[in-house]
Amino acid sequence: MIENATFRHSMPAQIRFSDVDQFGHVNNSVYFSLYDLAKTTYVKDVLSGRMKWNEVGIVVANISANFMSPIFFMDNVNIETTTVELGNKSFTLLQRAIDPETKMVKCECRTVMVVYDLKAQTPMQIPEDYKLAICEYEGRTPEELSKKK
Amino acid sequence: MIENATFRHSMPAQIRFSDVDQFGHVNNSVYFSLYDLAKTTYVKDVLSGRMKWNEVGIVVANISANFMSPIFFMDNVNIETTTVELGNKSFTLLQRAIDPETKMVKCECRTVMVVYDLKAQTPMQIPEDYKLAICEYEGRTPEELSKKK
Amino acid sequence: MIENATFRHSMPAQIRFSDVDQFGHVNNSVYFSLYDLAKTTYVKDVLSGRMKWNEVGIVVANISANFMSPIFFMDNVNIETTTVELGNKSFTLLQRAIDPETKMVKCECRTVMVVYDLKAQTPMQIPEDYKLAICEYEGRTPEELSKKK
Amino acid sequence: MIENATFRHSMPAQIRFSDVDQFGHVNNSVYFSLYDLAKTTYVKDVLSGRMKWNEVGIVVANISANFMSPIFFMDNVNIETTTVELGNKSFTLLQRAIDPETKMVKCECRTVMVVYDLKAQTPMQIPEDYKLAICEYEGRTPEELSKKK
Repeated sequence: MIENATFRHSMPAQIRFSDVDQFGHVNNSVYFSLYDLAKTTYVKDVLSGRMKWNEVGIVVANISANFMSPIFFMDNVNIETTTVELGNKSFTLLQRAIDPETKMVKCECRTVMVVYDLKAQTPMQIPEDYKLAICEYEGRTPEELSKKK
Repeated sequence: MIENATFRHSMPAQIRFSDVDQFGHVNNSVYFSLYDLAKTTYVKDVLSGRMKWNEVGIVVANISANFMSPIFFMDNVNIETTTVELGNKSFTLLQRAIDPETKMVKCECRTVMVVYDLKAQTPMQIPEDYKLAICEYEGRTPEELSKKK
Repeated sequence: MIENATFRHSMPAQIRFSDVDQFGHVNNSVYFSLYDLAKTTYVKDVLSGRMKWNEVGIVVANISANFMSPIFFMDNVNIETTTVELGNKSFTLLQRAIDPETKMVKCECRTVMVVYDLKAQTPMQIPEDYKLAICEYEGRTPEELSKKK
Repeated sequence: MIENATFRHSMPAQIRFSDVDQFGHVNNSVYFSLYDLAKTTYVKDVLSGRMKWNEVGIVVANISANFMSPIFFMDNVNIETTTVELGNKSFTLLQRAIDPETKMVKCECRTVMVVYDLKAQTPMQIPEDYKLAICEYEGRTPEELSKKK
């Protein structure tokens, strides 16, 4: 069930006491806050100097997550992120919440992100230097990442 | 893109100021808090007297959401919920965030829920009276709901 | 311990499943989200047409809350809000989380709000029409509200 | 305005994108989630082996916070925690949100915590070994910490 992928980007997550629900589990909605933060960190780390924050927006179009195993308050959790598909106007991130010691994958998530022209308020082509930066970071060719998987 | 379905269950959502992010949009993770609350309300409304809280757990296995249009702080939003598939050990809810006046669908979400034997700590058959209660509430036959869609 | 005050403004709070912690209690931090929303609603209801959103900001300077009794997921809770002090550049709100049926006060909170000139980025005199609107809403004279209590 | 105190306990806070509101500021309610987590970490670090989780509860009775300066998404923030008063059945924590580089204090918070007999459901004397552990951690005598300040 768990997708085979190489994750070069990993962010330790700080679990808050308020994240935990009545059953002692980190609430489902919190996973998406953590994925969201990891996405922001990933984009910043991968694109850094190239980001045109005022011109190019990145918008979540679809999120799909499999919950394998609960996260408890005392658990160590890293959020790993990689790009698995790079289209013309959208790209897909694969993320997972993993225990860095046991390597147990607690949850896995795919997010389709659409690149957005903030002035025209319409989807736009992903800038070429964005694509290059992602390919370079991931050690993949544009052809490898353009294939649907 | 929006699924055709009849929603008999609708819950008005109270948007909090803290739900809104830097762009003035309700943050993605908040949608899942609202869907979660609507699920709890749905299950309570549909099963009410029949719920065996200490024996039968209901666990989220998969969530998949399409984000069509942002929600703003001042927006009115209802969360609508219906059962679209009723399996042996799992069932699937379709939910959406909709503006009750304009009928604009802002987001749509499918959740696969697994029914869980809390003592044995293992998935279990959905109790027959749960199935009946869901079919009755939705005005559908078990056959209609057993078909994958 | 509970302050004597008349509350003309009351907002029903929608408790989310994700608000509840490991002990089955609504987490402390959630109270402040609810107080925050009730403040926004109060200001909107009291000042409505008079609000100069782009010129006059309202900033929280101090929050002080007494927690008397836990709130559970199934509890009905209203957030009540009133102005108890109206100074030159700041005003103080008293709020409480109350069960509308049992009238049990679960938590009480005082917030000092500073009025802020958004252009000059400095505290400013509370506009006279704001003061009048608050006095009118609360049925109090400016003298009554200027006394520290 | 900022209290003079020595903080031996410091916890870096992970700010989430969803913590930030429409004004680009970390929402007030989030501070209390972070203070809450730092409290839990403090108690665990100070009492560790001595904790009788199933017998002795620690409950928040009062929170009072001064907000000096906004926290932005990109800010580095540590939450510092110390005990400033040790009574018979309650103790008071002083906490602050501080930029570890500029040493700017963004917010300061006092919390009165009541120690609770979980079986009898009533406040109880703070166990002697808890008191000793706190004094030892803070490098203060019980007399110094019993004085109201």
